[in-house]
Amino acid sequence: MPRQLSVGLLGQRFMGRAHSNAWGQAGRFFDLPRSVRLACVAARDADELAPFAGRWGWERWTTDWRELVAADDVDLVDVSTPNHLHAEPAIAALRAGKHVACEKPLAGTLEDARAMRDAAKRAARKGARTFVWFNYRRCPAIGTAHELVREGRLGDVYHVRATYLQSWGGPATESSWRFRRSTAGSGAHGDLNAHLVDLARFLLGDEVAEVSGALAHTFVKERPLPGGAGTARSDVDDAALFLARFRGGTLASFEASRLAAPHLNANSIELNGSKGSLRFDFEDMNVLRFHDARDGARLGGWRRIVCTSAGDHPYVDAWWPDGHLVGYEHGFTNMAADVVRAVAGRRPRLPLPDFADAYETQRVLAAALRAASERRAVRLSEVR
Amino acid sequence: MPRQLSVGLLGQRFMGRAHSNAWGQAGRFFDLPRSVRLACVAARDADELAPFAGRWGWERWTTDWRELVAADDVDLVDVSTPNHLHAEPAIAALRAGKHVACEKPLAGTLEDARAMRDAAKRAARKGARTFVWFNYRRCPAIGTAHELVREGRLGDVYHVRATYLQSWGGPATESSWRFRRSTAGSGAHGDLNAHLVDLARFLLGDEVAEVSGALAHTFVKERPLPGGAGTARSDVDDAALFLARFRGGTLASFEASRLAAPHLNANSIELNGSKGSLRFDFEDMNVLRFHDARDGARLGGWRRIVCTSAGDHPYVDAWWPDGHLVGYEHGFTNMAADVVRAVAGRRPRLPLPDFADAYETQRVLAAALRAASERRAVRLSEVR
Amino acid sequence: MPRQLSVGLLGQRFMGRAHSNAWGQAGRFFDLPRSVRLACVAARDADELAPFAGRWGWERWTTDWRELVAADDVDLVDVSTPNHLHAEPAIAALRAGKHVACEKPLAGTLEDARAMRDAAKRAARKGARTFVWFNYRRCPAIGTAHELVREGRLGDVYHVRATYLQSWGGPATESSWRFRRSTAGSGAHGDLNAHLVDLARFLLGDEVAEVSGALAHTFVKERPLPGGAGTARSDVDDAALFLARFRGGTLASFEASRLAAPHLNANSIELNGSKGSLRFDFEDMNVLRFHDARDGARLGGWRRIVCTSAGDHPYVDAWWPDGHLVGYEHGFTNMAADVVRAVAGRRPRLPLPDFADAYETQRVLAAALRAASERRAVRLSEVR
Amino acid sequence: MPRQLSVGLLGQRFMGRAHSNAWGQAGRFFDLPRSVRLACVAARDADELAPFAGRWGWERWTTDWRELVAADDVDLVDVSTPNHLHAEPAIAALRAGKHVACEKPLAGTLEDARAMRDAAKRAARKGARTFVWFNYRRCPAIGTAHELVREGRLGDVYHVRATYLQSWGGPATESSWRFRRSTAGSGAHGDLNAHLVDLARFLLGDEVAEVSGALAHTFVKERPLPGGAGTARSDVDDAALFLARFRGGTLASFEASRLAAPHLNANSIELNGSKGSLRFDFEDMNVLRFHDARDGARLGGWRRIVCTSAGDHPYVDAWWPDGHLVGYEHGFTNMAADVVRAVAGRRPRLPLPDFADAYETQRVLAAALRAASERRAVRLSEVR
Repeated sequence: MPRQLSVGLLGQRFMGRAHSNAWGQAGRFFDLPRSVRLACVAARDADELAPFAGRWGWERWTTDWRELVAADDVDLVDVSTPNHLHAEPAIAALRAGKHVACEKPLAGTLEDARAMRDAAKRAARKGARTFVWFNYRRCPAIGTAHELVREGRLGDVYHVRATYLQSWGGPATESSWRFRRSTAGSGAHGDLNAHLVDLARFLLGDEVAEVSGALAHTFVKERPLPGGAGTARSDVDDAALFLARFRGGTLASFEASRLAAPHLNANSIELNGSKGSLRFDFEDMNVLRFHDARDGARLGGWRRIVCTSAGDHPYVDAWWPDGHLVGYEHGFTNMAADVVRAVAGRRPRLPLPDFADAYETQRVLAAALRAASERRAVRLSEVR
Repeated sequence: MPRQLSVGLLGQRFMGRAHSNAWGQAGRFFDLPRSVRLACVAARDADELAPFAGRWGWERWTTDWRELVAADDVDLVDVSTPNHLHAEPAIAALRAGKHVACEKPLAGTLEDARAMRDAAKRAARKGARTFVWFNYRRCPAIGTAHELVREGRLGDVYHVRATYLQSWGGPATESSWRFRRSTAGSGAHGDLNAHLVDLARFLLGDEVAEVSGALAHTFVKERPLPGGAGTARSDVDDAALFLARFRGGTLASFEASRLAAPHLNANSIELNGSKGSLRFDFEDMNVLRFHDARDGARLGGWRRIVCTSAGDHPYVDAWWPDGHLVGYEHGFTNMAADVVRAVAGRRPRLPLPDFADAYETQRVLAAALRAASERRAVRLSEVR
Repeated sequence: MPRQLSVGLLGQRFMGRAHSNAWGQAGRFFDLPRSVRLACVAARDADELAPFAGRWGWERWTTDWRELVAADDVDLVDVSTPNHLHAEPAIAALRAGKHVACEKPLAGTLEDARAMRDAAKRAARKGARTFVWFNYRRCPAIGTAHELVREGRLGDVYHVRATYLQSWGGPATESSWRFRRSTAGSGAHGDLNAHLVDLARFLLGDEVAEVSGALAHTFVKERPLPGGAGTARSDVDDAALFLARFRGGTLASFEASRLAAPHLNANSIELNGSKGSLRFDFEDMNVLRFHDARDGARLGGWRRIVCTSAGDHPYVDAWWPDGHLVGYEHGFTNMAADVVRAVAGRRPRLPLPDFADAYETQRVLAAALRAASERRAVRLSEVR
Repeated sequence: MPRQLSVGLLGQRFMGRAHSNAWGQAGRFFDLPRSVRLACVAARDADELAPFAGRWGWERWTTDWRELVAADDVDLVDVSTPNHLHAEPAIAALRAGKHVACEKPLAGTLEDARAMRDAAKRAARKGARTFVWFNYRRCPAIGTAHELVREGRLGDVYHVRATYLQSWGGPATESSWRFRRSTAGSGAHGDLNAHLVDLARFLLGDEVAEVSGALAHTFVKERPLPGGAGTARSDVDDAALFLARFRGGTLASFEASRLAAPHLNANSIELNGSKGSLRFDFEDMNVLRFHDARDGARLGGWRRIVCTSAGDHPYVDAWWPDGHLVGYEHGFTNMAADVVRAVAGRRPRLPLPDFADAYETQRVLAAALRAASERRAVRLSEVR
């Protein structure tokens, strides 16, 4: 009988639901070194929380996150609250000796992110682990891409081209914490470019040296309040673009938008190298496109690889036969399984981002915002 | 507090796993009129069965399917065994007054299928319901296609073009029940064309009048036995193609193959009508392609609709935001939710196939096999 | 200074224009062993013919095809008239010792086709060559596909799947010779399936042994006459489908339709073999999709090859740099160049179909029509 | 009998061939108000020039471009020489009262471009017209896109995303004028971004206000000389990226690369607006993707429009039936036809870029290079 990992969750909205599902499904589909216990969930709205806990199998619930963070029977605290509410509970949990898994971006501000990184460093001495839910790393297609770069199949990488295009941010969309700088830090930038920067760093295995130029813009400046009671200011970027150089010389472009219909969740990234190229688009998430220069001009071109082969593509052995696709939520379940392995001292299937890693992503995002406002190139060494 | 629906499952392989997951997830993602109780699972291999039951949350297990079928606390028997083992337990369960959900195809032979249909008819008088797991009907894209045809948006449908292409059936693939006529009935035909015929009938809302010609072929006649102990004969079709006319005049072609690399699970169907057209391919399962003739020659063409809009595409309100894709298993979960609704007297989100409906699909499959062996057109009226 | 090849053309409509362009362009883009002289064009409508000849550079014109066929200064007669007007001038030209290039299908009826084949055989003794304008063979992507099959890269070919889908044949389309059996022989079948059968035979290098079943249907039975003066009967098939076995065991399906919106000219063919697969769709005509089984499950999938590499893909050295696409008319120009080479005793870039070859295609078409009307499988040996 | 337009051509390489073909084909496919006379071609290599002139139908040739520019019987001088050789003959021709059609980019340097613009302005007073061969404007799909924006179907345009990706620029590629700053001005930037900027300006109907950041990089610094005699320095950018704001608020990104395998000639542009979106990729050049927000979430998505409908898409009435694709060279032929119309006082099918227009594109290119070298945003008002 494997020992247990007891999880406490903060938050019950979109991400709370995705994480609850992941913790539940991980043990059903994967053979794990720890069984996962859904010990406690904390959120503010008690009326919603009780049925939420029942539906997802959380043993108990509380409206006081401090209680959860302090609970003796919680080994890992999972933070899925809005961005400005990451730092306080995450740091408190680390101080209480818990492992912490936090939603991305690490925080709404670089200051918060830095404090979290520092707290993680201190807690690590006592064995606490940190994780950040960059779920897209766990798509089998992205995992395969990561391995191909590691194997040298791309050679020198000349280009990274990453765009994350959505379209739910039109003027009719109601205001929420996501549209206020005070709660979200930024808009499409922190929400979507965070994923792109993480993916680019993860795939390349290299760090950004300089943001060479950036653009951020708020197209929709006023939004209806929920319930129809007037409007609220929207002061985050609807779209943010930037160019960057990696240390190894790769040129990169990043673009995030919530106003790019008909794209819905088009998280896509392409790498072009001297020996090969890769392309991924989340709207066709089971597919990896790969070009091997050795195929030659006569027979070369994008290969459309459906990454569903149990022996060949990461995580697939836990799921279904060839060609039986997985979806969005599977990235979270695959990550939950890796977190359980990591906490148990096993090797995760693919490298997991911790707070220090996510802080590097956050620095790039901060450099881009500075480049946009100062209308100049910004070296990463300027942002700490 | 909703009443319970107690489920008993037969089988613990690929389909047993898919069904277990569906029964478990249905109540987590959908608001259902009955809570689902995973009461009992039955299969032959006790060593595997105990951990299987634990993993998926089945309350008890047994190696005697008759015990499960007779159990007082089981309301619905779910049959996920190989094709030749559908009829006996399904009929026994119906006699015991249970609802029955059976994997597709309804049976390995038309005789078995007919007996099941008749048993279902008798049991219906006492309130028993039957269901067949044609899971692809529950993809949001297929559901939307069904609705568009109902709304008359295709006009007269001239063509149905359906192919189900896989590639796992090469000469190196080990023998199993799926490659023997005595256990599977047929090969790609019963396994894959069953889905195509069900989809065509479901989408069109029409019945096949005649199979106009057919081809079935066994390319690989010998296969290695598992474990390397010699070989076994393979006597089912690796590929089966047929042409058909529907009563309303639609011309149709069907093709199933296990030797069509690099397709992995390419279940695709296209309809062309006087007012519009539709296309679906399971390898891009969240997408429905639709052509509306009113768009005109200047601006008309396939629309690529990502069917992930909660208010607009069936079942999506239970899942994730726009563009956050679902996968293979969601078809089963969506169906489990509809079965619970149906048993509780509610309307399923989309029509559910019962044994009588699946028997009509089976007749078409039988007519095609006869057309292939007799090298002539076969009217459906010849097959009863 | 190369010797000349003097061409005489019959017809000035769609195909007359395509052929005129091809004869003119061939010498501009290719280095040919003969210069092409556009000697004479013949058609019935003198008012249209004079400007047509001027525009395309024909030296003279006549309304009497017999004059053209008899002209001393014409080496090759190019027949681009409607199907029922192929046999008489082609046979007359062969008797007059001319080379003949004829539009496809070879004829409207098998009888005409047989007479043409026999005339070609007799004329061959005196050195006359025959050619049939199966233009799609000359797309660089199809040429590459042909070579790959020759190189054994597909292994045993299990499947050919060919569809030619158009949508111009709705009820509003005016009547023309193409909709009358007396002038066209058949409808979509002779027009479109002719291309598919030629491509399948060309790519496979094998002959059909049996048509296993067929369907042909006239959906639109009445069409407006040009000018609005009433309607005319339409008695050719709008769609025709058939299944076939090749001698080597390949299973094949063919479908042609003029009622399959939004497809416009979707001439597509796919081959699946034990070692590799190929796919072509004319609506993306510069692209060949290729799967090499040696790529393995991890990295295998359709390769999207843009066939525009001068050293690698046939005919491309005559045209533009990498990725600078060619279009529909280039198939004709490529073929004209090959015809000039063949007449000059050089090897064409790819094998050219002659009347004997096109007669084999015509036999398959005739077998399919018989299978459709007799509702049974028809062996090719029954059709001579 | 229409009057003639006598053309004199400078250059006989890639572009000389494309232009020769265009001038010849225009009158064959289009009904034009002037017949086109191929009067004279000038280039330096007499050995190559004589056969070139013969093949393409040029009446005479000369190795002295000044003779051509001065010739009484030349109405229009077509400049297809390398970038640094545009200004002198173009200005001389304008002084001689000729119309001038010049290859893009207008020049290798902004100074040359400015001088050409000024010369064009002066010559315009005497009736001389100027044209720049931005051939991609003449693809039917781009023409349709232009019309849709004009019709207001995109609403406010939030985004322009343009990339021109090639892969012929690897280290094995031999040196040529294209890799030297002294002859080409820049590398991928002037060659490819020139097209993107022209397309963006043409489609949007708006001007760039600011380049917000830029990156240009020379990855390959040494290249083999033709013939194997050592190497030469390569000092132009292999890739150049920049971000820009248009006056109307649209955010734009541009990227050009010669090192982005397996892309061959992937000239693509996408616009996202409040009411609709457009996408074009030259590697599928007959296709325009269009999204109409009025299609709604249920049935909306990219429409794949094959722009081959004679009555509906520009230039198609001159070519072939529905779905019979055109290729690269047709953009030039369509432009030649429009130039003839413009010179004859008729309206071109779509607006033609003149020197003043191309100078605006050149300013954007110059601003981007300055932004890259000065590592800051550059307002267009700084570049004159």
